[in-house]
Amino acid sequence: MSAAAGAVIDARSGQAARREHILDAAESCFVRNGFHRTTMQDLAREASMSPGNIYRYFDSKEAVVLGLAERDRERGAVLVEAMERAGDKRAVLMGVLARFFLEISREAAVLRLDLWVEATRNPAIADLVERGDEEGRVWLTEMFDALKTSPDCDPAALFDAIAPLMKGMIVSRALSPGYDARPAVAQLQSLIKAGLSGALALPPADKEAGR
Amino acid sequence: MSAAAGAVIDARSGQAARREHILDAAESCFVRNGFHRTTMQDLAREASMSPGNIYRYFDSKEAVVLGLAERDRERGAVLVEAMERAGDKRAVLMGVLARFFLEISREAAVLRLDLWVEATRNPAIADLVERGDEEGRVWLTEMFDALKTSPDCDPAALFDAIAPLMKGMIVSRALSPGYDARPAVAQLQSLIKAGLSGALALPPADKEAGR
Repeated sequence: MSAAAGAVIDARSGQAARREHILDAAESCFVRNGFHRTTMQDLAREASMSPGNIYRYFDSKEAVVLGLAERDRERGAVLVEAMERAGDKRAVLMGVLARFFLEISREAAVLRLDLWVEATRNPAIADLVERGDEEGRVWLTEMFDALKTSPDCDPAALFDAIAPLMKGMIVSRALSPGYDARPAVAQLQSLIKAGLSGALALPPADKEAGR
Repeated sequence: MSAAAGAVIDARSGQAARREHILDAAESCFVRNGFHRTTMQDLAREASMSPGNIYRYFDSKEAVVLGLAERDRERGAVLVEAMERAGDKRAVLMGVLARFFLEISREAAVLRLDLWVEATRNPAIADLVERGDEEGRVWLTEMFDALKTSPDCDPAALFDAIAPLMKGMIVSRALSPGYDARPAVAQLQSLIKAGLSGALALPPADKEAGR
């Protein structure tokens, strides 16, 4: 490799490293003070960089959140790939979901909760959250469709059935330092198992009586 | 009734009405701008009252949130009482839960989400949220204990099983204007039904495999 090419690669990996460093700093700031309260100034201070330097990497707080979402997505893809090499698709799906909810850090959960609230008031963040949710929905319903063992399985209905449970685990993780996700994860896996075999026939919600 | 006594009652109901009016204004402000961003000044403006007058009723934003939580509690108690007069306890429980999650307004859901986030950073709010959650937990586990039809029913485990689902419904309601809670409510009722009859045996959460 020529010295010039080496320098280009060094510069590139230096830039990538600095991007990572800013994203780490942002995560800390957002978790500590919330997305709304955090300024680009705060980010610069936390990253020990000048504000001007930060703006070379991200031109707004929304761009930083987009960067965090992309990083999450890349990490998720690496996890799925590693598990796909190891076993069958159904085991992969159950394992990926379980690991995600059992291992999600309190910081990541708080950040997610914060972005949900911000989404109710900030259209740019609402758009980001919606795109992320939509990607998750498409990935999961495709997985369900590929894995169903009965024509009675309705992948879209199965997704609707598990979505609130998944959101609720994130809230519980954010609120309770000692939260144990295992019962909810087991419930999630049971629902998916029932759904794939077409046995998710839920009774209609009953507003007035309990039978 | 003497004129003096009438005047005292008028003054009291006037005070109660003003308190209600401030709480309504607070709800609007919090939903629009978030708990953190809302100042007592904003509250006064929204309620068309002087800040000094607001402080006669509530001495801090935290006190306003406490007032909102108390109002929720009173409304809930009225609902439970009305339903208890109408039918048996199990139907009451299922009906109260269904009505709550089917009818919760987007505003109320956003406010709840906002307070959860605030609780991750503000000890006074964390305390309020925790007390509210604890009350709900005690009420529900007592209900489960009274209604169980099998010695295998574990009221505490049943509560743990439904808690994330209930939180998730609130998040979904806050995020999606068109959210239909019926599938999740049906799932909640199924879980409770299974739990009360001791049939909630969830498999242990499986992190690596999907069987």
